[in-house]
Amino acid sequence: MALYFIGLGLYDEKDITLKGGLETARKCDKVFAEFYTSLLAGTTLEKIEELIGKPIIRLTREDVELNFERIVLPEAKEKDVAFLTAGDPMVATTHSDLRIRAKKAGVESYIIHAPSIYSAVAITGLQIYKFGKSATVAYPEKNWFPTSHYDVIKENKERGLHTLLFLDIKADQNRYMTANEAMEILLKVEEMKGEGVFTPPETLVVVLARAGSLEPTLRAGYVRELIKEDFGRQPPHVLIVPGRLHIVEAEYLVEFAGAPEEILEEV
Amino acid sequence: MALYFIGLGLYDEKDITLKGGLETARKCDKVFAEFYTSLLAGTTLEKIEELIGKPIIRLTREDVELNFERIVLPEAKEKDVAFLTAGDPMVATTHSDLRIRAKKAGVESYIIHAPSIYSAVAITGLQIYKFGKSATVAYPEKNWFPTSHYDVIKENKERGLHTLLFLDIKADQNRYMTANEAMEILLKVEEMKGEGVFTPPETLVVVLARAGSLEPTLRAGYVRELIKEDFGRQPPHVLIVPGRLHIVEAEYLVEFAGAPEEILEEV
Repeated sequence: MALYFIGLGLYDEKDITLKGGLETARKCDKVFAEFYTSLLAGTTLEKIEELIGKPIIRLTREDVELNFERIVLPEAKEKDVAFLTAGDPMVATTHSDLRIRAKKAGVESYIIHAPSIYSAVAITGLQIYKFGKSATVAYPEKNWFPTSHYDVIKENKERGLHTLLFLDIKADQNRYMTANEAMEILLKVEEMKGEGVFTPPETLVVVLARAGSLEPTLRAGYVRELIKEDFGRQPPHVLIVPGRLHIVEAEYLVEFAGAPEEILEEV
Repeated sequence: MALYFIGLGLYDEKDITLKGGLETARKCDKVFAEFYTSLLAGTTLEKIEELIGKPIIRLTREDVELNFERIVLPEAKEKDVAFLTAGDPMVATTHSDLRIRAKKAGVESYIIHAPSIYSAVAITGLQIYKFGKSATVAYPEKNWFPTSHYDVIKENKERGLHTLLFLDIKADQNRYMTANEAMEILLKVEEMKGEGVFTPPETLVVVLARAGSLEPTLRAGYVRELIKEDFGRQPPHVLIVPGRLHIVEAEYLVEFAGAPEEILEEV
């Protein structure tokens, strides 16, 4: 009788750990999953069900945020219940709130980690300890044009740090922001603020698409070039704005991400 | 014929993904591993060998850093070779350098991700996007007393950000720094610098020991209390110095890490 938050990892059904997939999920009496905070692009619910040998109940945002106490917790008081999520479970702030709600209802919970974009981003060759605060680029709406990601990039850059930008997910509308869309948005913010943080000829960016697959797309270059490139429609994409580069970081970007060799001279 | 960098994850032999452990390592013709950049406290080389059904050649720091071209790369030109590392492979900067060296020798390489402390630290309830630059607390030596971690904490705090501190590993001497030792060192630096960044009565810290195990040790409190606590000798420990807390973060620390309730009033 406990609730197991189990991470599914990054890309397909084989990114779950042995502990999470084979040992824990298989022994649970009931299995829930949510895919609105993040998604697994390389698999289907059916393939995950096959792997763990159990039906999975897919929860909506409303089920999770409003009805967790009604749908999930009563089960976890009587049985072992798995709650599957993309990535590493506690990375979505929603999930740490759920864990508090479980505890308050007297339900014990455990976390089973999985690969996450927070460490997988090291596949860019950018040194992970040099990442500053991260931010999300959201789709602007009618009366809402968020710009705080721009300020985060600026602050990180001033300290020489890299910025990892998550791109908006609107799972209910099947809309996943591409790196190109994110660059368009950032250029608009640059136009509004004019602080020289994100400019076509001077800002180096790194695009990582489909992290976790064996052959993810990894590209580095100046905004003016990369904004025209096709990284594949399949989500998810992340955009990284590097800070000061160490020579090994620059070399890696040239070797594995097609960065222009001139960046080697700037380090 | 390729080199597969495969992450082993955090704690025991079951923290590898299905993709890494069952699919890839098992099909490789030769398997190397290194444990000097990080370690798996909950398992043994023998258990990992059993799991993947192959003997593993354990490499020393010297083998990896000086003799990679002689020991590993010639094999990877003719066979599928696995290179196992604790955590998510590219997180150790050494490994991204190895990947460049492989490419320059004409060896293709792939990365298979695994759970990493960089995302697992979210089990503290601290929101992961609010972590700033991370740092390492090293054992001081005779004529070398590094203090840059103190400056990193200070800079992050000024921006309200959390700091993840890695603690020194001297695998060859079987010496793994405890959170208590790290606090002692930080207090010494505080004495030297006197900038009020790390003080016994005012600085809240979070200790996470043995992340990745099903029941890791998680404690939060002021330095003066936590420095006296026993978190278990078994490594690894990390120490986190939180920045500004959101109410849900504070609540989580009270519920799951035994933080004093007074922190709820300060947010």
